[in-house]
Formats: sequence, C-alpha cells, structure tokens
Amino acid sequence: MSSHWGNCLHISIFGQSHAPAIGVTLDNLPAGQPIDLEALHAFLARRAPGRGPTSTPRKEADQPEILCGLVNGFTCGAPLSAVIRNTNTRSQDYENLRDMPRPGHADYTAQIKYRGFQDLAGGGHFSGRLTAPLCIAGGICLQILKRQGVTVHAHIQRIGRVEDRPFDPLGEGNLGFLPKIPLPVLRPEAASAMEAEVLSARQAGDSVGGVVECMVQGLPAGVGSPMLESLESRIASLLFGVPAVKGVEFGAGFAAAGRRGSENNDRFVRQGDQVRTASNHSGGILGGISSGMPVVFRAAFKPTPSIAAPQNTLRLSTGQQEILNVRGRHDPCIVPRAVPVVEAAAAIAVLDAWMETKSLEGFL
Amino acid sequence: MSSHWGNCLHISIFGQSHAPAIGVTLDNLPAGQPIDLEALHAFLARRAPGRGPTSTPRKEADQPEILCGLVNGFTCGAPLSAVIRNTNTRSQDYENLRDMPRPGHADYTAQIKYRGFQDLAGGGHFSGRLTAPLCIAGGICLQILKRQGVTVHAHIQRIGRVEDRPFDPLGEGNLGFLPKIPLPVLRPEAASAMEAEVLSARQAGDSVGGVVECMVQGLPAGVGSPMLESLESRIASLLFGVPAVKGVEFGAGFAAAGRRGSENNDRFVRQGDQVRTASNHSGGILGGISSGMPVVFRAAFKPTPSIAAPQNTLRLSTGQQEILNVRGRHDPCIVPRAVPVVEAAAAIAVLDAWMETKSLEGFL
Amino acid sequence: MSSHWGNCLHISIFGQSHAPAIGVTLDNLPAGQPIDLEALHAFLARRAPGRGPTSTPRKEADQPEILCGLVNGFTCGAPLSAVIRNTNTRSQDYENLRDMPRPGHADYTAQIKYRGFQDLAGGGHFSGRLTAPLCIAGGICLQILKRQGVTVHAHIQRIGRVEDRPFDPLGEGNLGFLPKIPLPVLRPEAASAMEAEVLSARQAGDSVGGVVECMVQGLPAGVGSPMLESLESRIASLLFGVPAVKGVEFGAGFAAAGRRGSENNDRFVRQGDQVRTASNHSGGILGGISSGMPVVFRAAFKPTPSIAAPQNTLRLSTGQQEILNVRGRHDPCIVPRAVPVVEAAAAIAVLDAWMETKSLEGFL
Amino acid sequence: MSSHWGNCLHISIFGQSHAPAIGVTLDNLPAGQPIDLEALHAFLARRAPGRGPTSTPRKEADQPEILCGLVNGFTCGAPLSAVIRNTNTRSQDYENLRDMPRPGHADYTAQIKYRGFQDLAGGGHFSGRLTAPLCIAGGICLQILKRQGVTVHAHIQRIGRVEDRPFDPLGEGNLGFLPKIPLPVLRPEAASAMEAEVLSARQAGDSVGGVVECMVQGLPAGVGSPMLESLESRIASLLFGVPAVKGVEFGAGFAAAGRRGSENNDRFVRQGDQVRTASNHSGGILGGISSGMPVVFRAAFKPTPSIAAPQNTLRLSTGQQEILNVRGRHDPCIVPRAVPVVEAAAAIAVLDAWMETKSLEGFL
Repeated sequence: MSSHWGNCLHISIFGQSHAPAIGVTLDNLPAGQPIDLEALHAFLARRAPGRGPTSTPRKEADQPEILCGLVNGFTCGAPLSAVIRNTNTRSQDYENLRDMPRPGHADYTAQIKYRGFQDLAGGGHFSGRLTAPLCIAGGICLQILKRQGVTVHAHIQRIGRVEDRPFDPLGEGNLGFLPKIPLPVLRPEAASAMEAEVLSARQAGDSVGGVVECMVQGLPAGVGSPMLESLESRIASLLFGVPAVKGVEFGAGFAAAGRRGSENNDRFVRQGDQVRTASNHSGGILGGISSGMPVVFRAAFKPTPSIAAPQNTLRLSTGQQEILNVRGRHDPCIVPRAVPVVEAAAAIAVLDAWMETKSLEGFL
Repeated sequence: MSSHWGNCLHISIFGQSHAPAIGVTLDNLPAGQPIDLEALHAFLARRAPGRGPTSTPRKEADQPEILCGLVNGFTCGAPLSAVIRNTNTRSQDYENLRDMPRPGHADYTAQIKYRGFQDLAGGGHFSGRLTAPLCIAGGICLQILKRQGVTVHAHIQRIGRVEDRPFDPLGEGNLGFLPKIPLPVLRPEAASAMEAEVLSARQAGDSVGGVVECMVQGLPAGVGSPMLESLESRIASLLFGVPAVKGVEFGAGFAAAGRRGSENNDRFVRQGDQVRTASNHSGGILGGISSGMPVVFRAAFKPTPSIAAPQNTLRLSTGQQEILNVRGRHDPCIVPRAVPVVEAAAAIAVLDAWMETKSLEGFL
Repeated sequence: MSSHWGNCLHISIFGQSHAPAIGVTLDNLPAGQPIDLEALHAFLARRAPGRGPTSTPRKEADQPEILCGLVNGFTCGAPLSAVIRNTNTRSQDYENLRDMPRPGHADYTAQIKYRGFQDLAGGGHFSGRLTAPLCIAGGICLQILKRQGVTVHAHIQRIGRVEDRPFDPLGEGNLGFLPKIPLPVLRPEAASAMEAEVLSARQAGDSVGGVVECMVQGLPAGVGSPMLESLESRIASLLFGVPAVKGVEFGAGFAAAGRRGSENNDRFVRQGDQVRTASNHSGGILGGISSGMPVVFRAAFKPTPSIAAPQNTLRLSTGQQEILNVRGRHDPCIVPRAVPVVEAAAAIAVLDAWMETKSLEGFL
Repeated sequence: MSSHWGNCLHISIFGQSHAPAIGVTLDNLPAGQPIDLEALHAFLARRAPGRGPTSTPRKEADQPEILCGLVNGFTCGAPLSAVIRNTNTRSQDYENLRDMPRPGHADYTAQIKYRGFQDLAGGGHFSGRLTAPLCIAGGICLQILKRQGVTVHAHIQRIGRVEDRPFDPLGEGNLGFLPKIPLPVLRPEAASAMEAEVLSARQAGDSVGGVVECMVQGLPAGVGSPMLESLESRIASLLFGVPAVKGVEFGAGFAAAGRRGSENNDRFVRQGDQVRTASNHSGGILGGISSGMPVVFRAAFKPTPSIAAPQNTLRLSTGQQEILNVRGRHDPCIVPRAVPVVEAAAAIAVLDAWMETKSLEGFL
C-alpha cells in the first residue's frame, strides 16, 4: 500500500506527476460541513510553485475539481474526492533515469520494487506534486477544525544555516498573518536572510534543506490515544509520507534527550478555569493524548535532491560512473512550499483522532 | 484505538501495568518459522529492569507465556499470542494521582479522555511496561528476519550530555557484541561516562534522557512503499507509540536541514555486483523504499518524568499548587532498557513492509 | 490475517483448540462501562457444550479470565483482553488427519496454506471452540447496547426438517425468555420436534444442520453506512467467520428474489411520534443504514462435519480411499450452541457501526 | 466509512449518481500487469443500462478514464484510479424525497444519518450506479486472475418465479459464452421465460427480484484465511455492499441447514494428480480457505424499489400518507446488469486473499 491512511477519517491519495491527474478521497467526513472553496484554493496556492525567488518558475494551476462528496457547498456524508489535472505533457525526458538513477531520488528503489514498471515521468507517484492532494484533504480538515476553534499554523523555522525564532510553546495568539506573507516566519529579518540562503544555493546550482515548525492551538485536552495510535504516531506517519521529510520531533524533541527530568517536566497550573502547564516541553501531548496546551512539532526536510549542477551517478547497465545532468526546473528549496503541507498533515491527524474520541462519547 | 497496528503483519498490544497481565497478538505471521524461546527470553531480558546501576531495582520476571500460535516450536499460521503476568499487587498508591496529576505523565490527559475511568495503577496502559509485549512481537520478527540475513542492532547514542560515536551508515559488520554488554555502546569509554551521567542524575533525585540509534543491515532493496506507508512512516508510527519517544530521524535527519543537496545526495556506486551508495545520508530509504544500504535511524527519549525529588503540581479539586512526591522506584534513565524496544519496533515495521512487497510477487 | 476485525471498535481473536488458551482483545471500547461478569458468564454458558441431549457431553468450563481493560468492574478505556484456558490435554489423536483429511473440515486446506505447520489438534484455530472468544466480545457489547435500550435475541428457526415460526419482523416485544430455555424457540412444540430431529441424527451416527434467526430491537435509525461498510456487510463478515455458517440473509433475504417490488417495498408510516414501516422486508436496513425497525437476519449452519459413522476419505500419501473414523465426541447439531454466537456477532457489528456514527456527531 | 475495503489489495469507491463523477482507486496492485482497456470496456458494457427489454432505456456511456496507475498499458505499482463522468444534469426532481422518502430506498435512513445533508439526486452515493466503479476494480482484478488461470463467471439463476439450472459445482468447463449472451443463463429456454417475467412486471408498473450464481474456477487450494477474514467473509462483505443484495450463500448454503452431515460432507478423492472432492457442497471453501474445487456462491437481489406504479408513503412533515409517483426510468429488474457486478466482487475478494497468501511465502 502506499496511499491510504486513517482510523475514523480515511484518506486515499492517488496519481503520478505526469499521469492525467492526481487526487485524493476523504471517507467518513462529517456531513453538513460547509467547505469554502476560495479558502481552499488560497490554501493550495501557498503550496503552488512559482511564488517568488525561492521556488521553481514552473507554473501549476493546481485548481482541484471536487468530483463528489459536496452538495451546494456542504459535505454530504459520501466520500469526498477531488482531482487536479496534470497539464505537463509526458516527455521522454525521463527514460534515461531507468539506467542512471538520480542521487537522492526514488528512481533506483522504485526500479527494484516495481521491476521496471514504475512511472518515471516527473517522479511518478514519488513526486512532491503528490503533496497537493494531501493539501486538499488537509485544507478541508482545517476548515472543519477552525469552526471548532482549532487553528493550525506553521512557519519556516530554519533554512540552511538561517533560523527563525521558534514558536512560544505556551501559545502565540493569532497567527493568521503567517499564511499571508511570502516566507512565513516570525521574525521579519529571518525572511530576507533565508531568501539570501536560497538564492546562494540556486546560484551555485545547488539546493538547501530546512525545518518547518507547526503549532495547533485551541485543541481541547483528551484527543488521541496511548501507544500505537498516539497523536504523535498519527502526525508522524503522515509527515514521513511527505517526500523529503527525514525527521520529526514533538515539543522539546531531540533536545529533551540532553535534559534532566526536573527541567523537562511541565508543571500543571491553573489559569482562570483552565488547567495548563507552566512550560510545554511535551509539545501538548502526554501519553499520546492532547493536554489542552498547543501541539507543537517540527519536521526536517532534506535539500531537494534535484540540483542543477552535474553529479556523478552509476549507469546500471555498464557499472560505470557517469555525469548526470538533472533536467527540468526544480526548487532550490522546497521548505517554503512545504509549510502548508505540514499544516495539512497536522489537520488530518488531529481531526482523525478527534473523531475517534467522539466515537467513545454518549455511551455513559 | 490505541494498540493495534499493521498492514500485512498485524499486532495488537494489551494490558495495564497492574492488571493481571499484559500481552500481544501477532496475526498473519508466516507458518513454519522456528521460534527460539531462549533467544526470545534473552532479548526480553535486555529490556527488563534491575540490570545495573542505571535502572530501577524493581524486579520483573517478564517471562512470557505463549498462549497460542506456536506448535512444537514452530509458528502454525494462527495468531500468536503471548502474555506476561503482572506480579505487582495493585496498591492504593495511585488514587491521589487522579486529583494531583504527575508532571510529564498521562495522568491528566487520560483523566480527560476516559472521564476518570482510566487505570491509574502503575501508569495503566500508558506504562513503559507495555513495551514488553512490543518486545515479544519484535523479538519474534527479529528471528524471522535473521534467517533471511537481516540483522537489527541499536546502541545508546546519547545519554544527557554524553555521546557515543554514531553508527557508520555504510555498515558496521557484525554488531552481535552490542546485546551482550550492559550499556550497548560502540566506544567502551562512553559506557562509563554514561553511567556517571545516570548516577549523577539519580543522586540528585532526578532523571536524564537520551538517544537510541538503530541500524538494520542486510535488508535488500525494494522493501517499503511511497507516501503514507513509507518505511519511515511505519517505523516512526511504532516508535512514537513507545512512551517517552519525542523525536525520530532517519539518516542525516535534522542535520540534513542545514545542508546543501550536493552534500546530502548519496551517489550510486557499484561494489562488486551490488549497487550501493557512496554515502548514506538517506538512512537507507529513498522514496519510502529500502535502497539496499543499512537502514539507520534515531529515536530521542525524554527523561523519565517520575523523579524522586519533590515537584510542584496542581491539585485539580482545589486549584492549588501542592508538593507531589512520586512514590515507587523509577529508572533514572530508561534509555538503556529502550535499546531492545527500538530494535523491536524496527523489526516489526520491516517485516510488515517486506511481507507486503512479497504479496506483489509471483503475478508476473 | 484471520482474526481481527473492525472499524471504530476493533476485535482480535486468538487461540487454537488445544493450545494453552484461546482469547480475544477488544480495542476502543468506551470507558466507564460497567461489565456484569455474572451476566457475561451466563451468556457464555449458553454456548458451552454439555447442556442436554442435543450437544456433546464434553465439559468445558469456559470461564474467561479478564486480563486487562477492566478496573473495579468498569471498562477503563484500555484494550480489554480475556482468555479461556484449554484444559484438554494435547493428544496424538490428530496426527493421522495430516494424511487423511476429514471431509467437511479444514484439515486439507490448512495443510496447503500452512504447508503442514498448522495445528491439527482439536481443529486448531479452525475449531468451533474459537467462537467462545467471539462470545466474550459480543457479550460485552450486548451489555453496552442494552444500557442504550438495544436488545439482541436469536432463536433456532430451523433444525433439519423442523422449523420454528419466524420472528415477527415488526417487533416481538420482550424476548428475554429465549436465553432461559434449553432450545430457544418461539413455539414450544418446535423444541421437542427439534430435539427428536437431533436425537435421530445422533442415533444414526450422523449430524444435522439448521438456521438461526436474530433480531436487534431498539436500534435507532441512522446507524451503518452505504456500500462496503453497510450494516449487512459488517454483520455478514463476522457471521461468515463463524465455522459452519454457509449462508446469511437479511429481512426477506432469498425470498425477496421471487417477489415483485410492490410486494417487497416497506411503506413508511407514522406510529405515535415515530417513523416506522408497515412491513419489514428490508430487515431494518435500507442503504446499509438502520431504519429504526428491528434488524432481522438469518444464518444457515451446515451439519457438523464430524460424524460418528465411518466415512470414506483419501489417504493423501497413497492416493487410496480409506475408511476414516472421526474420534472424539462431537455435537450432532451445533445450532443450539450457535444461538449466542449469532447474537454476539450482531452486537459487535452494531456497536462498531454505532460508534462510527457517533464519530460524526458534534461537528455541526 | 462506506467505501473502502481490503487487506492486501485495497479499494476505495467514491461518487454520487449526479455528482460530477464516480470512481474507484485500487491500491497495492502488482506492477507490470497489462490491462486490456477494450476488454475492460466490454466488461463494463455488461453492467450498462439500455441493453434490451429487461433494462432501463437510460443511456450511460460509462466509459472510464484511467487517471493514474497505468503507464503504456501496464500497472505501474502506484494506486490506479479511474473515474466515470456523470452526464445526467442535476435536476430538482429529487427535493421532494426529503419529505416523502421512497419505500425500499435509503432516502429516510440517509436523512437521519446525514441530518439532511445527503445527496438526494439520483440516489446519491446509494445509487446502483456506484456498482460501475466496483466493476472497474473487479474488471482489472479479473484480468490479473485470468493470466493465473483463474476464471470468474456468473449467470442468472433466478428471476421472479423462473429459474435457470444451477452451476455444476464440480466445474463447468469453459463458461466464456456467458458474457456474450444478453441474458446469461445456462439453459437457453430460461432466458425467454425470464424475459417474459421481467416484461410482465414492467407492464404492471412493477419490478422483480432474482438470484445471481457465481463460480470461480481454477483457483488453487490454500487461498483465504480462517475466521474473520475467511474467503466467505471477504466475498460477502463486498456483495452486501452492492445495493439490493439481501442474501448470500456459499455451496449448498441454506439448503445445507436441512441436511445431515453424511449427505453434506464432501469426500476427498484423487483425480489424476489432483486432490478433489467427489461433491462440492462446501462451495470450494473449507475453513475459510479455498479447497481447489470451484468456488460457488449465490447472491439474492430484492426487486428494484423504484416502480412506476403509484405507492403510498409518509409525508414526514405532516405525518400523512400520500401517493408517491417515483419519476425517472428505472430497471424493472436489475438482475441481468448485476451479473458482472457479482463477478467483480468475487474477483476483488479472491485477488486480495491470494495476495495475502503470497505475503506469507518465501520465508521458509
């Protein structure tokens, strides 16, 4: 399997980069939810390429067509399916990759698993383009969550050597400005330094990685499960489905490994009529279940493996090293476009866990 | 849900720390696999407490009873279920946690989700003790994998401020010595420094976190899937089901975020008749599928939240801060005992993915 | 896989007839549900053998031990696992079945699938004994449903040539008497005729099949789903997991095939403030979703394949026909003991579907 | 959930009758399988309406567009998704059904479950039209199975009072003629009598039900699983997802309930170098696993609930009975069009089970 996921809410992603279309099906969405298509398009536009100097100049319209599941703007309880047409023509550009796999790509592993029948064009089902359907699903979940008072926002925490300040894990108030700025960061000066970092990589025919940090605010305590379906497991299993993600951490994450318990434990406190913690090293999750504090996590993205500079690789048929020039126009840094993808993954996982919690209610 | 997982192979974990028993069921194991119970017991013993100055002096026999699925030492194709009896008597020690939740524990979140009906004793289903059944499942998978030439070994890469050298991601040869030494590290001098780090925490009535690094050697290329059921997603969703894990990274992981593509890409090379990569920043996984290189990943463990020193917490009924003394004997550092747990998670995920790959074969 | 099932509620069954134990795990049960163990034992006793002339004189205590998931008599939200010890010693009675498969049994098909490693003793995982854990799971679900006003009752609709009257599909009122009588039928005179039918088969060294009819009363409209997770699909997939079930029909079932639409359609009517149908040929399910009318279905059981009379079978190693004498004491008719099994399957399927419906609520 | 299913092979169905499209996604198909689109179209044409006096004169092109998963005519290992555009315009014909639910339809149950937000037009996700995507999935599975020597054929065993002869459960040889005749029956004279039965119902403004019998030939022994994922459970859970199916039986089915074990048991015999049974009352499945004999089962279809004659129903808002005239052109008998749907369900279930069996191989 590669492309379905879920417990109470179920998503199924399909498509290859140069197939006629890519898309997604969401099953078991609550009925009667209004879906604002303009807001959904705006959300998808944040993932679209060609929005500035840090991204590829390729143009993708990425306007989804809702095939079903929506009637007069409201979810109808039936599976919601949406597709995006691929307008790039299928070229013969990619045939040589069968014999000369690109470093850092799935060309070789797909060749072995699918015995040469995999779709090479544009990366096939392995393409970062497949995050667009994930964003359709996530954008819909975000709207449902928002009506329940839950918001999900991410920012670029790092690109290459440049860092933004981290989220205040105790909460940030209204982060609605983030989706509106070209490089979503908390310190404006980080944006220009990051832009310089990306341009420097591009000028060197190279690419650069980064970290996206995400915060879910407004989620009540009690959502999630212990052990194998913990909130962390659900979020991480989606994030590690996003091409280029190689690390995920919640709250203090890897930094907690260097700490003592007395430092890392979050003391419970009362604030008004709410139970909160004085710090939030747990990232808002204890025992796999939300604590009522903001859920905070980070995803590390490797640098785009497709770079303009020539690289050595193996010609499989001869066993010789050869110079590979990866054609096409590629993002020198996919991190800015990955920001809504991370939000989408969080929204899907949180709504799934919340629905599961609701399935237990009403029996007392 | 909380305790079932899987695609082709399926596991279901059950139990609470002070319930009559804990256990696990594995469904769809291949039939005819010999299971060496002594080797399984030896594997479980590595997780058991009381093995040295770094762990709790509590004694747990942790001898599993195989209830079914095994006939004359061979898997019979039926679900294999094993249980471990809990010998600790259920005390009343834990009732006060309902009103005074321990910092860093699931006491509060379970109280909300389960409306006060959760099992508080010994941490209930949230206890680290539930990793014992995960190790039973993993220990069985490890034996099956080993017969196919696949080995899984982990070491303590970090405790507090002390680090061991990382695995050579190109391969380490025979790591069979690791399970035999009290603190499994690659540099012997790291062991004594780690021990000192743990003892220093214990003497301060405190605890300390760490990082476990794991390497799967011998896995052929082609195992895993793109996107939502990537090898990373499968491994991470199990690891984030292990209490205290707050971060997971594969290959270069978070470090890749600071790199350029030209540095991070792993060049394909031929070695004898094998395709390999000259470096292994990808951690042996490209596009969610094994590349034939060692699979390398790390899991970050937070410091044990149960510490001997008094802590402030909230009395929920009064809204007042009070001093909480966590009773019982707790590990000042669970990282040494977590090493086989990480190996178990890797083995389960890898066997599951491998079986799925095999389900596709033979139709050509 | 063979032994896990579910959407919102999840069950996993394990064990072989002569393994140390058989058992079941239920995951995602609502917390805070009181479980009356005496009522559960009474429910299981209805499935136990040795209750009269129609069943085998074998004795099975079948007292389940709840291993976890229950604290002070209430579900705690963690997986509930229960086991029943097998007290029959493992004999060598069964080795010859490897070469001489019993007609009507799984001896041969298991031999092929598991390549000779299957557990032959007592039928292994294929034994009707595995319906005991299904009854544990179902007995618990029945108690939860009953508190919501939903009752599930089955009767023997047919044994061999003898029929009981069918349920009135418009509702039967209180059927609480059925579990209390030895042969649960609606017409007392049917009981004695059925008993004679079974005894006649036994005296001939033979066995006889039958039909169990089940009715779920009190289930509100709106539970279930269209298409692949219809209420019918859920119930049927569990029922066809019960050994010996070879047919399942809902409402008019196969009889509807001979009807015209004008006869078969159930007209909607108002009764007090309730919407009902004037007839109930649909068996209380329209479009896979409960209509508020009683859910009515029937399961056909083949005659027990183990009969006392000698039978011809194949000796696989020689290709010769030989006379097989099936040893052991077997039920000449398993239908009376199957009645609670059918109720159990219905209860699990209905609770699963109901929890799923609840997962959708509260988002408007 | 409503529309996903599977273990090793996974299908997800989406769409409503009057939404822009309906479709299906198959995940985990083996790569490298050639798909003959003409053969697929021919298979779908058998389900299409307008093929004779027994069906509705509505025209549906039902030409699927393969969106992804297929490259140069071969499966590529990525999910295969196909859609069929709905060309019927969305009319306002259906609004009145909200207040006046059609007898025998899901109008009322959907209204309750989806709180009025369900798609009423053309039956929405409950429409028989949703069997077209099931046929796409099944048609693809049929082609894969056929290359392995497995054929799946169904015939109309009954319409109203008219019966065809049943399949010889020991095997029928080449049934390739069945898909080519307008009413697929084994006795040509049954066809004309069935046609008369349908026309008689149509002339009365009525509809009529029937039974489809299906046989899978060439399936080797050893495919399937005991208990909850038996071959029967898999097939039945798909069949009961088909609108109008109200009964499913395997082999002797309900007739076995009236038999003695000595009659019903199938004796094993050797035929050449093959193990077979002398009769096949088990329908080719013992213990949930294929026996190597033909798999034989029947599905009962209720008469189409939409009939031309006026019917009484309830106006929900007033509580009064009113006359309902169901508009639109409906099949007086859907059984002929259901024949390929039953074949499709069988093919999907069998391939899923077969892949699962293969996942266990190669570890010895």
